[in-house]
This record gives sequence, structure tokens and C-alpha cells, in this order.
Amino acid sequence: MNEIMLGGIADHATPLVRNCWYVAARAAEVGREIISRRLLGVDVALYRTLAGEVVAVRNRCPHRSFPLAKGKLVGDVLVCGYHGMQFDPSGRCVSMPAMPITPTNASVRSFPTAERGPLVWIWMGDPDHADEAKVPDTSWLDSAEWKSVTGGFHIESDYVAMHENLLDQTHFPFLHPGAIGTPEYARSKLKVREEGDMVIIDRELRNSPPPGVYGVPTGLTGRPVDRFSDARFVSPALHTAYARIVDNNDASGAPRTYRFNITHIFTPESNGAIHYWWFCSRNFKLDDAAADAHLYESSAKAYQEDVDALEWILDVVRNDSQPQFDLNFAPDKPGLMMRQILYRLAAAEAGSPSQGCQRDNAGGVAAERLPASA
Amino acid sequence: MNEIMLGGIADHATPLVRNCWYVAARAAEVGREIISRRLLGVDVALYRTLAGEVVAVRNRCPHRSFPLAKGKLVGDVLVCGYHGMQFDPSGRCVSMPAMPITPTNASVRSFPTAERGPLVWIWMGDPDHADEAKVPDTSWLDSAEWKSVTGGFHIESDYVAMHENLLDQTHFPFLHPGAIGTPEYARSKLKVREEGDMVIIDRELRNSPPPGVYGVPTGLTGRPVDRFSDARFVSPALHTAYARIVDNNDASGAPRTYRFNITHIFTPESNGAIHYWWFCSRNFKLDDAAADAHLYESSAKAYQEDVDALEWILDVVRNDSQPQFDLNFAPDKPGLMMRQILYRLAAAEAGSPSQGCQRDNAGGVAAERLPASA
Amino acid sequence: MNEIMLGGIADHATPLVRNCWYVAARAAEVGREIISRRLLGVDVALYRTLAGEVVAVRNRCPHRSFPLAKGKLVGDVLVCGYHGMQFDPSGRCVSMPAMPITPTNASVRSFPTAERGPLVWIWMGDPDHADEAKVPDTSWLDSAEWKSVTGGFHIESDYVAMHENLLDQTHFPFLHPGAIGTPEYARSKLKVREEGDMVIIDRELRNSPPPGVYGVPTGLTGRPVDRFSDARFVSPALHTAYARIVDNNDASGAPRTYRFNITHIFTPESNGAIHYWWFCSRNFKLDDAAADAHLYESSAKAYQEDVDALEWILDVVRNDSQPQFDLNFAPDKPGLMMRQILYRLAAAEAGSPSQGCQRDNAGGVAAERLPASA
Repeated sequence: MNEIMLGGIADHATPLVRNCWYVAARAAEVGREIISRRLLGVDVALYRTLAGEVVAVRNRCPHRSFPLAKGKLVGDVLVCGYHGMQFDPSGRCVSMPAMPITPTNASVRSFPTAERGPLVWIWMGDPDHADEAKVPDTSWLDSAEWKSVTGGFHIESDYVAMHENLLDQTHFPFLHPGAIGTPEYARSKLKVREEGDMVIIDRELRNSPPPGVYGVPTGLTGRPVDRFSDARFVSPALHTAYARIVDNNDASGAPRTYRFNITHIFTPESNGAIHYWWFCSRNFKLDDAAADAHLYESSAKAYQEDVDALEWILDVVRNDSQPQFDLNFAPDKPGLMMRQILYRLAAAEAGSPSQGCQRDNAGGVAAERLPASA
Repeated sequence: MNEIMLGGIADHATPLVRNCWYVAARAAEVGREIISRRLLGVDVALYRTLAGEVVAVRNRCPHRSFPLAKGKLVGDVLVCGYHGMQFDPSGRCVSMPAMPITPTNASVRSFPTAERGPLVWIWMGDPDHADEAKVPDTSWLDSAEWKSVTGGFHIESDYVAMHENLLDQTHFPFLHPGAIGTPEYARSKLKVREEGDMVIIDRELRNSPPPGVYGVPTGLTGRPVDRFSDARFVSPALHTAYARIVDNNDASGAPRTYRFNITHIFTPESNGAIHYWWFCSRNFKLDDAAADAHLYESSAKAYQEDVDALEWILDVVRNDSQPQFDLNFAPDKPGLMMRQILYRLAAAEAGSPSQGCQRDNAGGVAAERLPASA
Repeated sequence: MNEIMLGGIADHATPLVRNCWYVAARAAEVGREIISRRLLGVDVALYRTLAGEVVAVRNRCPHRSFPLAKGKLVGDVLVCGYHGMQFDPSGRCVSMPAMPITPTNASVRSFPTAERGPLVWIWMGDPDHADEAKVPDTSWLDSAEWKSVTGGFHIESDYVAMHENLLDQTHFPFLHPGAIGTPEYARSKLKVREEGDMVIIDRELRNSPPPGVYGVPTGLTGRPVDRFSDARFVSPALHTAYARIVDNNDASGAPRTYRFNITHIFTPESNGAIHYWWFCSRNFKLDDAAADAHLYESSAKAYQEDVDALEWILDVVRNDSQPQFDLNFAPDKPGLMMRQILYRLAAAEAGSPSQGCQRDNAGGVAAERLPASA
């Protein structure tokens, strides 16, 4: 434990980390109909240019706060529905019909985006730190060698609790007593380590039957296999789990490895509500509809159990009139390491220009607060 | 720009101006059934005496806060539904059944009212400043020479934004692209001036076809006319627009003038919600049902568009976690003048006796806080 | 009026008195299915052991705040639904599956309970002051000599207003104009006295017909009887009224006494919402279904009228933007005495260890805030 960790551990009320690539929407959601979504407390309008580029701007006209998503597109230009003020994809005003001269230094804040396979990522933080190279890898979601099933939730919970839940597998036998929980696995040895701002836990369990979720699609139910898992807190926006099931008794005579990549994506709507998307990807039986159905149903059921539990918990935490300092036990270590990272990241942003709207309408505005003449 | 204007401009959160005649209800709503309505944050009970006079008192018994509108009328006396405490139309207690002697210096606050045609006006401010002579003129609503259609809304918006919307006609082509918006009109010259606490904008547009709302009932669609408009912020409670359409090619050989008076009435329920009534009055075709229907439908549609826009805006303003200082442009000048007046009026009232309940139960109370003997 | 009374009178916003036996639930509600209920702002989980003992613990796992009522019972042990942490009926942790050694000094707060007839009482205050001998007497609810009808409400009101309502019978003719209100009774002489922290009002009305609620089951409607009532504020949790109807013209030749005990039970859910249970008990015609029905219907109707009135009042008090100091009259004396007692009890608790959660997890916890090793 290094010293900076002493600063504290994040909880549901900790300010949200803004300097991070988050998912704004599934790529398929964004098109020529403008949509809006609240991300980190800010309403964002999303659309595509005629060329198909994703545009994300603040959903609030800088003139009279009209929600821009209620306006319309004319070509690549977003036209406000109140006074017809027009913004190009960069957010710069290109026309204000009521004015003889276009106030070209007026603008609506635009947000950097990056489209990666089925996902549109967005940078809500300090634009000077937006670096597309840091969009996290989810290449398996867009690879011909993988097949994914996917689902999502809008939930009343917080990313801290969701990440802690995913870094903790000791709850499997209790919260998910059917498909994914085996008592042996809950007690299996884990190794935890930090890598930069990531927390990674490795587990292995040898010579033990797989849980239902993996047993059915691999056809290995009830048979002893080796099971390896690398689960990682990648960023506030992303948890990925790489699971391998190794069958040492494969008919081929050689060990056969089945891989599952599980992708959990969280974007806070605000403190207390999150957009949650998940993907369960596999590198075998790519065209097997029964495997699709089994993995979708098992995953959706288990994640619904997580969602229910975490919504119940946040409700308790918010409404209980007598606060509680939760106890911590040894298996909570990975979660606490992650919560220290989240706290450290949030603390580093506090007071920095990226926390707030200081950069909105950057570059000055055309009109004074009160116009000198009509 | 005079100095007092530097004090600031009102927005949705500015304290409400109380020293003003507001509309409490349509006259037809008030009768022998007691109704209640929240006006400027205060619940008011409204009824008529046997002689037909409107009575308005605070909807809260001074004894145990029972809502008086849940009581009943016995003649002109309002009887509380909890302990039978009785109040005459002035608000004075005339009986408390549980007491051997009537506590005649107990009272419920009554509010001055003034009935004018279809409207009941109320004075929620300092009673010493209530002056019926200052009830604003809406005499066309009750004149044999005029015919009106009318509608209303209860909306989640604020009078500041509603008044600003009405002083701004540059939004017509965008928010109301059908009936009332013509691009020529949006660009027509306006003259703006203050008269006391009023803001008046005059526009004229010559030799141009009228918009649909005026063209259809006058029968002048598509024909060049002269159009004059005097739109005014009369008070926090009232915006009136006097429009004239002049047909210089009338069959009579002489120019013919068609007049439309538009009346917009706002009474805050609280900061963030308003009662809104509108009237569209004309001085021609008084008995023409088709003209009635056309003007009602055109008006209701346009005002619904305003209401939608302003509810969306207030939702953004209230819920967006990153505040914004709206940009202002030259055409915003009339609205900003009005907002300075609202700010100045609100500031002048701050800390004055009319802001609050200091005058409730004025004149002392019959019983001590704790009675000396039972 | 002694000096301590000068401290103030309780109202809806006064902190709740915690050092008091409250009813947590009807005995029949508590069984082998865990239920939860918010009591004085704290969520409590309630169940019975295999031997039938009632257990009440905080509905919040000390580890990660999971609501324990969503867990399950294994024998007498409550198992958390998240990580399987187990608690015995005293709240002590008896197993944490993810830990090799049980953290036996971890615990969830348990609350003393006492089952009395149809009621389960709970002590939410300082456990050092829990004394079962002070559970108030409601023995008639469980006696072969009495027959009760019962009902209940969950209401948006406060115990202060409910107790004041019950100590005030001058509202009967107005709020309950049918069954229980007679004008003679409203004007009858009352004697009020304090006994410790109780307020007791005695009324008698001789030679007058009983109100409908009592007239019908006794068969004395319209006949002159003597009526005696001892109504008492017993504690924040309880109001009891002992009524006697004496028929001096009984066919037996001797006066005959009919007794009614009315029991009103209040448990705050929070400031502003209460659980309310009532019982109407009689010591005659124990097997008369018509008497049951009449008393249930009369009582339920009257108490619904009280509930409506008090919900309306709290709504006014909470939402009116202009506060009011209610007037008091001589008949309010018993209520004001009770409100002084409530204020005094609340003030005495302020800052004392029973106000808050200081005793939760008492005795230290097994794990440090951050475990030293995994």
C-alpha cells in the first residue's frame, strides 16, 4: 500500500472521474436522428454527419438553453429548434438567423468521440487530455474470430459498487447460486496486482467441473477441466474478464482451450445512476444459435441478479438515516485497491479545469451580456 | 442603459414579484364550491358570497393548519372542517365552537380581489399597496365590440422565460414554422422602449402577406398588407399584443383595419411552475364560428409549441449539472430590458414586509401560545 | 406550567423519541419469512426463530450494506444474500464463507423485542435502557374477557399531530359529523392531568344519548346514559381511551356498565410518515358478529377521516412557502401538554448515545478498514 492510497477510498458519492473514455452509446443507436443522453451529469446530443462521423455536442444551446436534440439536422449542421442558431460538427456557430453577422466565435461545446466496433466512446473531461490512443481495447467485439451476445441496463447504482462487485467472486455462490457459482471457485486462490491504474486478479482452479454458464456451450458439464480467469478493472468505464476453460481430455488427444471474454461497460448518468452494457464473447461455435441463446440467458440472468443487489444496496445507503462504515475482509482487497484508484483519480481532478464547464463557449462570445444596441 | 440596470437580470430562480395584480382564476371557476389554488407559493381558497362577491383567503386555518377549502360555506361564512372555526369574508373569526367566547381578533389572511370580465385578479403582496385602479386594462375581453377565444395551461416553466419568449419574435419561423412565422417578419424592424415598468416593442412590416393565423380569418391570405404590432410586457402578470392588419386594397376603396388583441396571463404557482391563460380577441366577424375555430386552433397550437420549448428549457436549466451563462444577442434586448425590470422589482421587495407572512393574523391573537387554563 | 416546559413544544419536525417501546409489527406478520420495515428511520429485518422467538436486526449487512431481509434463514441463522455472511439471533457473525476464520466480533445491530398478544414491540433506543417491564399494558387485546376489531394505516403524517388529534375531542362534531360526534359531548367538561410522561383527560357526560358508535352495539341508541372517558397519551407509541357507558335503566334493575377500550398505536417510519394500528375492544357481546362489523366500520370510517385531515395538514405545513405559528385555544391544553412532553423527551435524547448508530457493530470489528493481505 503506497502512501497516496491513504487519501481514501471512493464510494457512491465520490465525484465522478471525467478524464476517461466512456461509452456514449452503441454505434447502432447513433444516426441521422439526433438522440440525447445524460453522461456524467451533462446532457449530450449525438448524431452522425452525412459522411457517417459521430458528432457529440452539449445538448444545450448557448443562447437560451434549448435542448439541441429537439432541433434538426440540415446536412451536417445542427439547427436549434428555438431561434435557428446553427452549429457545425465542431460546435462552432455558423449562422444565427436573427443577426446580420454570424457570431462565429460563439459555440456549443463538442466532445471528442471515437467509434470502435459496436461502441461509440466519448471524452467528457479536459479536451487537452483526450487521446484516442487511450481508448481501451475491446477488439474482440469487432473480430471475425469472436462471437458476442450483448445486453444492457439503465440502473440506479454507481460504478464504484459495480466495479467492486465484478472484482469480487466470493459472492457467486450466494447471489448467483445457479449458473456461475461453484463453491470450489469461490475458495480458489486469487492473485491480485496493480498495473498503472488497473487492478488485475488472476484465478485458477484445476481439475474441477465448470459452472453451467461455461459447461453447456463447451459441452463439458460435469467433466473436470482447468479454469483460468484474468479479471481486470481497466478504467472507470470498463471491466474485462478473460476466461479460459482447458479440457485436458479432448477427443483430439491434445488439450483444448475455450475462451470467453466478458466486457462490462459503465457510464455514469450521474452520481447514482449508470448506463451499463455487457458483452459475452467466445472464440468457438461462432454460428451456434443454441450457444448464443444459452450465453445470453445465463449472462442476462446473472447480471440482473447483480443489478438487483446493487440497486437494493444503493437504496439502503442513500435512505438509511444511520450511516454505516462497512466492514472489510481479506477478499475485498481487489475492490478496495480499485476504490483507492478511483478516489485518487477523482481527487486529482478536483479543482482542475476539466471538472466543470469552464471550457464551454471557450474563445469568447460574440455578444456582450447586454447588447449595446438593437 | 441606466445604472439601476446593473443590478442584474431576473431568471427562473429570482424571487417572485408579489406587489402586482395577478389573475387567481377565471371568473367562471369561482362559485359556491370552495376551490383552492397555489399562487406565488401560497395556497389560496376562493369562493363567492351569496351576493356573488369573490372571496380569497389563505387556505390554512390559523388554528391547526387545516386546508380551509376542505371545509364548507354556511352563507358567506367559511367553516373549517376540523374544529368548525368560522371566518367571515374579511377573514375575521366569527365563531370558534369549542370556545365560550369568540376570539374575534383571530383571523385568516384575506387577499384583495378584483373581478374584471372573465378574470378574477388577486393581490398577494403588501395589502397597503393594493390599489384596484392599477388592475391592468383588459377591457376588450368584456366588450361587445370584441370576440375572444381562450385557452390555458399549467406548465413547468417560469414567467421570466415566458415573458422573454413573447418579447422575442425572432423565434417564430423556427418554433412555429407553420402558422405565425414568416421570415420577413422575423427580420422586420423593431422599436423598443420602456414606459415605467413596461417594455413595449413596435414592429411594422409593409406590403407583405400575413401569416396564416391572421390571413385566414381576414380572408387576406397571400395578399400584401401592412402589419403593425405593439407588444408589451405590462407587468409580471400580463403581456398584451395589439396587432393591426391594414388592407389597402379593400373592396370599399378605403383602407380597412383588422385588429387582434392577444392577451397572455401568467400567475406563478411557485418558482418553476405557472398558471397560464391566453385570449385571442378580434374586432370583426364577431359571430363567425369558423373564425373562432381557426383562431383557437392556430393559437392553441402555437402556444403549445412555446410551452413545450420552455418546459424543455427549464428542465435543462434545472437538471444540467454544469451551469451556463446564456449568450445574448441584439434581438434579445427587449427581453433583457424586461428581465432587468423584474430583477429591480424583486430586489425592491426583498426584505420588505410584503415578502413573507408577517401580516398574517395581524392584530394579535386571542389565545396565548399556551392557554393558562382549560 | 413548570419551567422545563418552557423548552418548547414538539411539532412534525422535532427529532423522534427513540427511548420508547414501539410496535414493530403485528405478531401475525412475523414468521419464518423475513420481512423488513422502516422504523424511526432505520430499516429493520424481522423474523422468528424455529422456537418462535421474534428476532429484529438492522436490515443492512455490516459488510457491504446488502439488505438482510433479502437473504434467507437457515435454522435460526440469517444468511446475507450477497456473500453469505451469517448472523445468529443476537446479531453476532457466526460465519463468513469467504474467510477461513469467522470474524465473530463482527455483528449486525439487534434490537430488543417483546411480544405481547397481537403485538411485537421493539426498542430502537439506547439498549442499556431497554426494560421489558416498561412495555405498556394492552392486556385487553389478549384477554378472554374482551373482543377486539382492528385495522391500520400507513400514513403521511406525524405522531405529534396524531396524538394531538386524539387528545382533542372538540373536533368530533366537525370532522366526524355522523357516528362519534355529539355537540353535547364536545362541550362536556374535561379534566386534564399529567402523570409522569403521560397526559390523561377525563370526561363525563351524564344523562345524554350515546353517539352511534356506542349506541348500536349496546342497544342504547336514543336512550339517556352516563358516559365516562379516560383518554391518555401513554407514550409516543400509544394512546389508549377507556370509555364506559352506564345504563341506569337496565332491565336488571341495577346500573349496567359497557366498556370500550380503544387502542391507537403509532410507530414513526420517519419524520413525516407513520405506521398506525388501531383496536376497538369491548367487554360484552363477545361473539356478536354484527357488533364486530358495526364497530369495525364505524371505527375505520372515523379514523380514515382523521387520517385524511392529518395528511392534508402535513401537506400544507410542509409545502406552504409561508410558515405559520398556529394559534392555540383553551381546548388545546391537553395536546400542548403532550407536545411539551414529547419535546422534553426528544431534547433529553439529543446528543445522547441513543441518537444515532454509535452502538452499531459495537465491540470492534474483525477486519481492518483495509486488509493487510489477501
